[in-house]
Formats: sequence, structure tokens, C-alpha cells
Amino acid sequence: MSHKQIPRTVQKKLERTRVARLATVDTAGHPHVVPICFVYDAPVFYTAIDRKPKRVKAERLTRVRNLAATGQVALLLDEYFEAWERLWYVLVRGRAQPVEGAAEQQRAIRMLQKKYRQYAKGMLREDALVIRIVPERVTWWGRV
Amino acid sequence: MSHKQIPRTVQKKLERTRVARLATVDTAGHPHVVPICFVYDAPVFYTAIDRKPKRVKAERLTRVRNLAATGQVALLLDEYFEAWERLWYVLVRGRAQPVEGAAEQQRAIRMLQKKYRQYAKGMLREDALVIRIVPERVTWWGRV
Repeated sequence: MSHKQIPRTVQKKLERTRVARLATVDTAGHPHVVPICFVYDAPVFYTAIDRKPKRVKAERLTRVRNLAATGQVALLLDEYFEAWERLWYVLVRGRAQPVEGAAEQQRAIRMLQKKYRQYAKGMLREDALVIRIVPERVTWWGRV
Repeated sequence: MSHKQIPRTVQKKLERTRVARLATVDTAGHPHVVPICFVYDAPVFYTAIDRKPKRVKAERLTRVRNLAATGQVALLLDEYFEAWERLWYVLVRGRAQPVEGAAEQQRAIRMLQKKYRQYAKGMLREDALVIRIVPERVTWWGRV
């Protein structure tokens, strides 16, 4: 999927939206979905396992185990309004894997820290696990 | 999963939250996720295919085809705040299928119309496809 095929209005949503929902799936076909913070570094997205409280270590989180198992993801950006004529969403389907190279990991962490001031307060470790989402198909609906 | 095992604060989120994200999966293991309006009729949830603009008929929607194919769902309720200490989510994992009985369908439609005034304006047909989500596991995180 080429970034250039995405209309400018949709690209702005990808750049500016503050929260997305990441759906993953295990090998038995059970879906899982969590809210995530992310950055768009066209054409890919990055999200990190940050220090918001977790019950288990990063490697044991369902989303991370599912990525290791199948790598298939759907990332949903949307906003809810009571005025339904304002509703919109952008759905990104593709694949995701942990970033292994330190340079790419550090760059993604810096981008996340720039987008989210909250990360400046030590919420995101320099060695945080970073996930790269590679879109294969991007669709949109409503008032984007 | 017994409704009684769910704390009252979490039940309130299930009753009052206005939007959720429904993740489904196809037989090839590709996840899909869309925002939905829903009602909680403990212990199940209902959502309908309403008349918000769609490109295809209800039966051809990816979420509906995925339910027919696998029936596996994850339903996420959450709210985003810039004050991250306020974040919360409730994740419902289970199975979903279209409702076949007319009485249950009509009851669900009435509940949806009661929760969402928007549905009063002809956005929800009396013969709308209604989906019943049956929780098998409910987990929560953050300030619920």
C-alpha cells in the first residue's frame, strides 16, 4: 500500500489521532483488542510497550504473544460523537512485528516522546519494546 | 462467565459507555475491528447493523462474514484521556452470532433505540440484523 494513495485528510487523521485500537489474533483464531498510543511514520506505525501499569512483562502481554504467533493486525482510528453525521474511522490492516534494530527503536521512541508529552515523565524506557505495524490495506469511512 | 463476578463499577461502564470497538477474525486469521454502538443486557451485548451509510448490504459486511465464519470476538470499551492516570478499559472476549428469533431481535432493537436517541430518526430498521455477543471472559484495566 503506497502512502501516496492515501488522501491528505486521512493522512492527517493518521498523524494527529491520539489513541487507536490494535486488534491481534492468536493461532487458535481468538481476537484481542487494546487501546494504544502510536505514531505514524509514513508508511508505517510504531507503538511501544510503555510503563502504564501492566500485570505481566512485555513479552507475556497478549498483544505481543499474538504478534509473535501470527503477526496479523488491524489498527482502528476513530472518534465518537453524539452527532452521528460527524463519525469517521480509518482501518489499517496489515502485519506487525517487534523492532529489532536499535537505531529504528530509538527513533520510534523519540517520535513517541515528541507526540506524547506524557512519555517525558519516564513512562517510556529507552529499551522499551517497540512494535512496527506495516499497512497492507487502508480503508476509511465517514467524515474523514 | 457470570455477570455477578463483574464488579459494579465495571458493570456501569458496560451499561453506560456509548461506543465500543468490535474485533472479529476471518478463517485465514486476519483480524478486523470497527467502532459499534451497543447495549448491555447482562450477561450479553447486542449491536445492530444500522443505517449509517454502508457500501455493501449487511450480510456482506466484513464483521458479519467473520462472525459467520468463526464467531470469535473481542469487544473493547475504553476512554482516552490526556491525563493517563484516568485511562481505563474493559475487554470482553467471547462469541457472537446473529439473533434469529424475532422476539429477541425486537427487544434488542427497542433497547438500542432507548439508549441511542439517534436511532429514533429511522436509522434502525425494525428488521435490522442484530448481533448477540456472549462473553466468555471479561477483564479490565486502569481506573474503572
